[in-house]
Amino acid sequence: MIAVGERINGMFKDVKRAIRKKDKSVLQDLAVRQTKEGARYLDINIGVGVAPDDQPEVTKWMVEAVQEASDTPLALDSQKIPVLEAGLSVVKRPPMINSCKCDDVYLDQFMPLAVQHDASLVVLTMTDKGPLQDVDGRIEACANICAKAMEHGLDMEKVFIDPVIYPVNVAQQQPCYLFQVIQQVKILSDPPPRTIIGLSNVSQGTKLRPLINRIMVVMCLAAGLDAAIVDVLDTDLMDAAITAEMLLDKQIYSDSFVKAGRM
Amino acid sequence: MIAVGERINGMFKDVKRAIRKKDKSVLQDLAVRQTKEGARYLDINIGVGVAPDDQPEVTKWMVEAVQEASDTPLALDSQKIPVLEAGLSVVKRPPMINSCKCDDVYLDQFMPLAVQHDASLVVLTMTDKGPLQDVDGRIEACANICAKAMEHGLDMEKVFIDPVIYPVNVAQQQPCYLFQVIQQVKILSDPPPRTIIGLSNVSQGTKLRPLINRIMVVMCLAAGLDAAIVDVLDTDLMDAAITAEMLLDKQIYSDSFVKAGRM
Repeated sequence: MIAVGERINGMFKDVKRAIRKKDKSVLQDLAVRQTKEGARYLDINIGVGVAPDDQPEVTKWMVEAVQEASDTPLALDSQKIPVLEAGLSVVKRPPMINSCKCDDVYLDQFMPLAVQHDASLVVLTMTDKGPLQDVDGRIEACANICAKAMEHGLDMEKVFIDPVIYPVNVAQQQPCYLFQVIQQVKILSDPPPRTIIGLSNVSQGTKLRPLINRIMVVMCLAAGLDAAIVDVLDTDLMDAAITAEMLLDKQIYSDSFVKAGRM
Repeated sequence: MIAVGERINGMFKDVKRAIRKKDKSVLQDLAVRQTKEGARYLDINIGVGVAPDDQPEVTKWMVEAVQEASDTPLALDSQKIPVLEAGLSVVKRPPMINSCKCDDVYLDQFMPLAVQHDASLVVLTMTDKGPLQDVDGRIEACANICAKAMEHGLDMEKVFIDPVIYPVNVAQQQPCYLFQVIQQVKILSDPPPRTIIGLSNVSQGTKLRPLINRIMVVMCLAAGLDAAIVDVLDTDLMDAAITAEMLLDKQIYSDSFVKAGRM
């Protein structure tokens, strides 16, 4: 599993405070710790409360601060082109752009940007009208995303489709829909696009969030999931995901496989 | 998941001692505790060290002891007809016979016995030559098991096929074979037979047995597994299995779903 570490996000209080005080050390510590725990990308999100005009500069500052401490590629987490461009102007390694909606108007903006910066692009099965709800609607959108990627010359392995998880306590049929979408996406093209989920949504509002999160990620991996935006500092979660990949024969068994899976 | 509690087995020291001393209380305590933790069947196995001539009587004693304390149906765990017949002569509720090999000679003996006693029957994808190793060989055996069940008038819902797990540290491609078999069995007949695994084999000889066991059971459930012989007293394992079934929409979400899943 390509783990995208979710913690460098202004929605978390420690990061919000660090942004306000321009305290690099908090971000750098999170970068180092998440990398040690197996993050393949570090999500960078300014959160809320930064004035729109300041957002590009704050993003640049965050990217530069993190890159001083870590070589792990970054996932620039915004749907605003100016914010993404600010981040892209200073990234040192091929990043991930996270994310764009699947309406053509967005694909035609974000895909050229990804190509230009050698970036991977997360595309949500969500339009301006909201998230797509059923399997067929999502698969239809995925087919269009693949066609658009070919049109724009974006390598299919750089396309990460996010089928958008709903909280299980309000839409209990949705996890099964998601497993089906994750499976079916793989037959849309050869090579196929990759799949990614923002895991923690599934357990929003539930009482046993870590348990639900880690069982959900295992089931998604069993369906063929490639990547997930997760709390890599959650040891039980990462152990579960790594064990799933070992059982799928994607990682060699050794007595220290849970450690090896983080390297 | 139909959880078969594995603990009343003479391979465990406490049970072996209880059998030798004719101490019912150990078995009865395990029966009550396993039922409380969600066991739908209680496995009854005399283990090793009981003289062949004594095995039917010991089995009878175990069955009667357990039934004094618990109404949970029993899984009579032996491949010997006289031992099974002894247990079947005293069971009070429709039991499970666990297990027979898939050679015709065994199916023709065990299936009539199951029909006669209204029992479910676990059939291993294993012949006198050993366990079947690939997906196709197992599926071919499953098709024959289904045909034999129809021939003998054994309801398909009473047929539990066990595709036989190998330890992952010696055969790392086997879990994926197992997931495929569990999926494909379901298209062999309508209604299809059910599937069951003896879970703990997967982690034999590994250093992280509980972790591997619980991730394996979740992945098997995602593939469509119906039942498993497990340590129901392993809270993390049962929580994982129940959460998987909740995410599969087989159990209603409530804030207390892990408790409800044991009832």
